[in-house]
Amino acid sequence: MNVNGNPCRSLRLAAGGVGVEIIDQTHLPHVLHWVRLDTLADAAHAIRTMQVRGAPLIGATAAYGVALAMDEDSSDAHLEHACTLLAATRPTAVNLHWALARMHRLLKPLTGATRVNAAWMEASQIAEADVSTNAAIGTHGLALLRPLFQRARQAGRDALHLMTHCNAGWLATVDWGTALAPVYAAHAAGLPLHVWVSETRPRNQGLLTAWELAQAGIPHTVIADNAAGLLMARGQVDAVMVGADRIAANGDVANKVGTYLKALAASAHHIPFYVAAPCSTLDFACPNGGAIPIETRDGEEVRLLHGLRLENGTLASLRQLPESEAACNPAFDVTPAALVSRIITEHGSHAPGGLSALRNRKG
Amino acid sequence: MNVNGNPCRSLRLAAGGVGVEIIDQTHLPHVLHWVRLDTLADAAHAIRTMQVRGAPLIGATAAYGVALAMDEDSSDAHLEHACTLLAATRPTAVNLHWALARMHRLLKPLTGATRVNAAWMEASQIAEADVSTNAAIGTHGLALLRPLFQRARQAGRDALHLMTHCNAGWLATVDWGTALAPVYAAHAAGLPLHVWVSETRPRNQGLLTAWELAQAGIPHTVIADNAAGLLMARGQVDAVMVGADRIAANGDVANKVGTYLKALAASAHHIPFYVAAPCSTLDFACPNGGAIPIETRDGEEVRLLHGLRLENGTLASLRQLPESEAACNPAFDVTPAALVSRIITEHGSHAPGGLSALRNRKG
Repeated sequence: MNVNGNPCRSLRLAAGGVGVEIIDQTHLPHVLHWVRLDTLADAAHAIRTMQVRGAPLIGATAAYGVALAMDEDSSDAHLEHACTLLAATRPTAVNLHWALARMHRLLKPLTGATRVNAAWMEASQIAEADVSTNAAIGTHGLALLRPLFQRARQAGRDALHLMTHCNAGWLATVDWGTALAPVYAAHAAGLPLHVWVSETRPRNQGLLTAWELAQAGIPHTVIADNAAGLLMARGQVDAVMVGADRIAANGDVANKVGTYLKALAASAHHIPFYVAAPCSTLDFACPNGGAIPIETRDGEEVRLLHGLRLENGTLASLRQLPESEAACNPAFDVTPAALVSRIITEHGSHAPGGLSALRNRKG
Repeated sequence: MNVNGNPCRSLRLAAGGVGVEIIDQTHLPHVLHWVRLDTLADAAHAIRTMQVRGAPLIGATAAYGVALAMDEDSSDAHLEHACTLLAATRPTAVNLHWALARMHRLLKPLTGATRVNAAWMEASQIAEADVSTNAAIGTHGLALLRPLFQRARQAGRDALHLMTHCNAGWLATVDWGTALAPVYAAHAAGLPLHVWVSETRPRNQGLLTAWELAQAGIPHTVIADNAAGLLMARGQVDAVMVGADRIAANGDVANKVGTYLKALAASAHHIPFYVAAPCSTLDFACPNGGAIPIETRDGEEVRLLHGLRLENGTLASLRQLPESEAACNPAFDVTPAALVSRIITEHGSHAPGGLSALRNRKG
């Protein structure tokens, strides 16, 4: 997608020589800062420290990480090392493992320059496929939003009020986003929209969503995560739209911690709860959400506040809680399939109980 | 209560001369800073800016605010002005209005020095009554926690795992607290406890709770508000214990925003959800939660992060969201009575549908 003539890409090939550039998302919304990844170690670091985040973008960055690794050393041993190192960066997002398995399957039988070239081509294909996948998610999601807008208009409402959690926009993918793809599609189709953006503690990825929506000129309001239930109870939310980091065979959804609380509130108020994700997020090897590993991140993310802008314009991390205080920081939670209205993929929208039809379309 | 020989009081009479001292809670957990209130304006400012917060402490501070006002000018006009000014500081907490109505009823027929003296005595009685009220809440709450601990022990668990939201400890009252009174009583009775402390964005009052529990030596862990659902789903929470800012006649509970989301999750996992509050929090004039006014505070509280400790030790407020971003900041939400297991008052614990028995005990 383009905004004001600028492409919205979170990842691009570096000009002049082998390398990849990513936006360091820990500096947003204050500074748009591109970082060059030249090595496997750079790519693993970018994923681990959440310079890049969002399941689809993690997958694409990992694929390029393998390509960078092959450029360093195209041996079998280094291929295995690269896949192992990258797989260990983030445990919950299955797209990471899906992309690495795809790279490994293709590269394993190849050697030397053929392997190196194939690695770059495949990483590029994974990234480009993500773009078209998300555009299709936007189209299928828009089909769900249109009747909701008609209903809102009949009730005398001036706009469709959506709520999202975390950031599942183009910053979380290569382009378009997952949960935000239908939002962008609806905006392009002229539907009047307003988006409730939940802050998403402890990493505040909601600020990335606010930044994206501001760029695109889509009306939105930031809220504390705690405010979601009140807004739904007041009838101020027409639908909730979130992404996913892994979806189990039965339709249980792992997504950013706090998603489950929003799903409970949406269910209590009969508000549609949509999950938008590419088929690469489906994990048919996981029978249900209980089998999805949930990443626990450092308690420092709760104790410290990151990416704050000081008066002199620099960014800092500052202490809000004494070092002596213990903090527990699970990064994801599981929303049971029963609370999910539809799962929107590039192949259309599905009841969470009907994912088996997609079993052969993971690619 | 005492910790290490120090009294835990959030409000005290100033030494030497007319005045009241309060802890400026916006500086905690970093600095314990007492502030002197000498005038009605000081008292109103302290409540409005949340130097003091928590429904019972707001009530006691407002009562002293009337006494300070009477010291300035004991006329009828100034009495009316004081009550009106103080009533407008925070709309949701009913204890504020209860305390002001009690002061007004007593002082109205009096004049001159009699009125002034009565104002100070009544404010002092409101504060002292709060102490014994909360001690009784602790006793009644402990009676509910004992069987839960037995059950946890039978299940091979080493401690009772409670979750709380916001701060309803001695900092939120004059002493003991409401939701934390049963926690302190259980700790004193030797029950092994662990408390999940939710951060409570946007004002982070969970940090006050963590500070209180650390002072008292009670094991606890701070979590992002978003993590509550996951912990309950994992079976890591035996009960939720929160305070209240206003309770409607039908048992609907207004409390710090985010309480409702925790109540939904507790209900989904059959976890007892307890509300601890003095009878002064009951508002029989409100038939249900829909009639409770919900305070909307400045969006700056979401845009800025307050009370952060800089490396040089000073406290600051820093921008996390550009000024151009709109933020919506409701301070409370309503938990329907159906999600509340018991309401614990100084007169025992009650089903939320059985509050009418307390109608004549508000005092």
